[in-house]
Amino acid sequence: MKITVAQLNYHIGNFARNKDLICAAIRKAKVEKTDLIIFSELCIPGYPPLDLLDRFDFIEKCNQTAGEIAKECTGITAIVGSPTINKNPEGKKLFNSALVLSEGKIIFSSNKALLPTYDIFDEYRYFEPEKKFSVFKFMGLKLAITICEDLWDEQSFDNEFEKKRLYTISPMDELAKQNPELIINISASPFSYTKIETKANVFRSKASKHKIPLVNVNQTGANTELIFDGASMIISREGKIRRRLPFFEEAVESFSFEEISDDYYHQGEDEKKTEPVSLIHKALVTGIRDYFIKTNLKTCIIGLSGGIDSALCLCLATEALGHKNVRALLMPSRYSSENSVKDAEDLAKRLNVQYDIISIEKPFRVFEEQLKPLFKGKERDVTEENIQARIRALLLMALSNKFGCILLNTSNKSEAAVGYGTLYGDMAGGLSVIGDVYKTDIYKLAYYINRDQEIIPVNTLTKKPSAELRPGQFDTDSLPDYKILDSILYQYIELQKPAEKISGEGINQATVEKVIRLINYNEYKRYQAPPVLRISSKSFGYGRRMPLVARY
Amino acid sequence: MKITVAQLNYHIGNFARNKDLICAAIRKAKVEKTDLIIFSELCIPGYPPLDLLDRFDFIEKCNQTAGEIAKECTGITAIVGSPTINKNPEGKKLFNSALVLSEGKIIFSSNKALLPTYDIFDEYRYFEPEKKFSVFKFMGLKLAITICEDLWDEQSFDNEFEKKRLYTISPMDELAKQNPELIINISASPFSYTKIETKANVFRSKASKHKIPLVNVNQTGANTELIFDGASMIISREGKIRRRLPFFEEAVESFSFEEISDDYYHQGEDEKKTEPVSLIHKALVTGIRDYFIKTNLKTCIIGLSGGIDSALCLCLATEALGHKNVRALLMPSRYSSENSVKDAEDLAKRLNVQYDIISIEKPFRVFEEQLKPLFKGKERDVTEENIQARIRALLLMALSNKFGCILLNTSNKSEAAVGYGTLYGDMAGGLSVIGDVYKTDIYKLAYYINRDQEIIPVNTLTKKPSAELRPGQFDTDSLPDYKILDSILYQYIELQKPAEKISGEGINQATVEKVIRLINYNEYKRYQAPPVLRISSKSFGYGRRMPLVARY
Repeated sequence: MKITVAQLNYHIGNFARNKDLICAAIRKAKVEKTDLIIFSELCIPGYPPLDLLDRFDFIEKCNQTAGEIAKECTGITAIVGSPTINKNPEGKKLFNSALVLSEGKIIFSSNKALLPTYDIFDEYRYFEPEKKFSVFKFMGLKLAITICEDLWDEQSFDNEFEKKRLYTISPMDELAKQNPELIINISASPFSYTKIETKANVFRSKASKHKIPLVNVNQTGANTELIFDGASMIISREGKIRRRLPFFEEAVESFSFEEISDDYYHQGEDEKKTEPVSLIHKALVTGIRDYFIKTNLKTCIIGLSGGIDSALCLCLATEALGHKNVRALLMPSRYSSENSVKDAEDLAKRLNVQYDIISIEKPFRVFEEQLKPLFKGKERDVTEENIQARIRALLLMALSNKFGCILLNTSNKSEAAVGYGTLYGDMAGGLSVIGDVYKTDIYKLAYYINRDQEIIPVNTLTKKPSAELRPGQFDTDSLPDYKILDSILYQYIELQKPAEKISGEGINQATVEKVIRLINYNEYKRYQAPPVLRISSKSFGYGRRMPLVARY
Repeated sequence: MKITVAQLNYHIGNFARNKDLICAAIRKAKVEKTDLIIFSELCIPGYPPLDLLDRFDFIEKCNQTAGEIAKECTGITAIVGSPTINKNPEGKKLFNSALVLSEGKIIFSSNKALLPTYDIFDEYRYFEPEKKFSVFKFMGLKLAITICEDLWDEQSFDNEFEKKRLYTISPMDELAKQNPELIINISASPFSYTKIETKANVFRSKASKHKIPLVNVNQTGANTELIFDGASMIISREGKIRRRLPFFEEAVESFSFEEISDDYYHQGEDEKKTEPVSLIHKALVTGIRDYFIKTNLKTCIIGLSGGIDSALCLCLATEALGHKNVRALLMPSRYSSENSVKDAEDLAKRLNVQYDIISIEKPFRVFEEQLKPLFKGKERDVTEENIQARIRALLLMALSNKFGCILLNTSNKSEAAVGYGTLYGDMAGGLSVIGDVYKTDIYKLAYYINRDQEIIPVNTLTKKPSAELRPGQFDTDSLPDYKILDSILYQYIELQKPAEKISGEGINQATVEKVIRLINYNEYKRYQAPPVLRISSKSFGYGRRMPLVARY
């Protein structure tokens, strides 16, 4: 028996495109005389379809597309993911299903039992959990067809407060009673740089526990903030990774059942680990590229300050979209440091990116004048800093509107966490490129980009971080050193540790409490932030839902 | 037996305040020689606590506060709502519990079985559903203690695609087997102007089905976007509403068991229906007031254009915060109509609200000049309109920052739906006051405000709606008549009808498709909108989750 793994990049709601992708892979597999081709979870609508699942017309379109794909399955069997209607009189209206298609028909279906409803996942919002389990007999083999979370009943969470077993049922334990010979897992599992090995180990441990080989098929590409890393896996019955498909790329690969099941067939060792920084880099480039492709947009604009954040974003955008589709705007003020404009220009020139320079001095003066009578007797304060940031956003958005280029937001996770940014100012943009990257990791990414040659000017990398909104201002005037800040943030946000358990070199309780106060106080700002490309296990936005009026 | 219903306004995470509120009601009830006092769902942390529930320290604080309240329960028994830890080795870490407190102890607890996970509700994100049911014996009576959704197993949804029975279990059917004599339902049920009678009917039908009287205790007040209407109910075993507590107000009222249970004790008829417009008005005032009280803020600012939306918001804000805490800013441009400034000034004067006037002409000219070289050869378009809207936001935010007054957003639901607004311009603000009110209902609210005297100038009510961003511009240039638009929007957003089923007077398929395209295209704008006070069954924001990159 020959099995093909189809790791593809789907577009939510774009049924024509998804069908074309799927059918092209089926045709390719037919040429290779494959018996079974496997696609990923909810590949027909694309993942995550969110509240589009509440629309009857959307589900009808899923059914119709599944039928069309089934017609393509002549002489080959395909497993696809799609929502299906729950025909029981009670419960949620849908199942999250794996459909087996052959000779124009749906010949088997298996529904997801464990519905992740935490972090960015909302599956119980839409789906009824399956409670019955049966293997699918195919060419004399019994297949245990599972969907993503179905194999994650024994996962461990970053938050120590979570239970080791989140569900009261284990689908694989149930299926094992029917003695399957191959585990198939179709998934839509987003990337997190701390979870690369965790994810592999989930599948490895299921294979070795049951002594059954496993084929996992993940989707790749990004849908708004979620970036799927692909990296589909073939795992032997001993729990060894026989093959991991590429990260963040489409791939269609075929394997004989012997290759998958026989431990000695291919004495491949577990492959080398990839450096997280290179994967984060690839994830962010994928995230930008797919946002533009899938919204049918081509060009972007970035406000270039001479600092490291905007420099990094310009490099990533250029890689994702091509230098001709990226433009930069430099907007110096009376407070810009000497080298800021030069560093920014150097970078734009090196990347061969079109750039313009507009000083914000004139509009700043006009606003100062206009507000003078109203501000009489008041000291200068953060207001004047915010006015500068908002003038810049206004100029960037003007170019965005006039030329149809999307403003990319360049705020990092550390500043988003503590509210070190201006709403409708530097927090503006259609997509936040590095809003899930802590400042200390921004440096790692910048040095990674400079690994072969100096692209980001050394001066940008070595100067003290500053917002340059008043004379002699440095980030450290109001924030702890970024190494300390990021350690506190990680423990509070990702690990969800109570304040008194947050510790580490240079960390004291007063600083911890100050940082937590800032995080909580600034929920209202993040509420209005653009979608953030997610690379961690807990990013701001959709996966972290905080009440704005809480006092805690 | 005497029972007290405590309908209170809790603040999320503010344990000290919630405890004080609860203990004050207990002390009052003790004076009245009450046997049992009932509070609402999750009253200890306040509802909805969202992801604060993921923090172990937060749950510890809940437990500790429950213990402290129990100590207050001498000679009285109290039912309070709180999260409790699920001690089973498997499943979600928490239960959503009703705790019975007496003489310093928790003497009984009942956990929620039906966990709403749709619209604005995310309860399966946090809680394990209870599967066992038992009545609580108190003073010789058997009480069926249920939590909110536990009685909603037979609700009907606006979306016809939903099943009539969303759950595979009926907690009340289970409890009924133990022959309870009183149904208690503690809830945290937000207001929706279309659901006032639906909600009452849910409880009425449960009481009459089982022939058991029912006491429902809801919370009141707002937490960010959610506004809880209180309106707790005492329902006879025949399903008649004996007493409905006030809408949107705190109230603590006591009843003898005879009053509750005996159909002939009090031959009260079902009360008169309240007009939706007056409830929407009260809801919005409550929403504004509580947002400010709970974020410890006092004053607001509104950009006053002379149009109906900002006029309505100024009236609502003045009622919520008092005229001394509201200020207005008028920002005319070359395109402002003759009467706009006069209408705005008239309103501000009538409401005795401080206002200033700043023309946006100067900064607009400076930006035009600065952008001229970059825009060479380009026609004027929406860019120049957006620049004006963003200059206004910049000025409003400058005053907001300098004086600590929060900018209230004045966009309505119709324009938010079709994207008729400028990001970082008129879409800015800390809270959207009327973002869940369709334009046609804006008029109803405005006339309601003018019911006794002309507060909003008649000219504001009668002139053709216009954004006044270019000469002779009217909303109807690019949008259908609001009556038609709102009907399409309601059918698409609230009822989730497929395009081909959307119909009504003056509605044709081309308009329907154009409007739907606009709704879907503008998801990215709404993603960055402020939180919207929710008064309908489907508002933008948290309860409507759409993929930004979808093509559908």
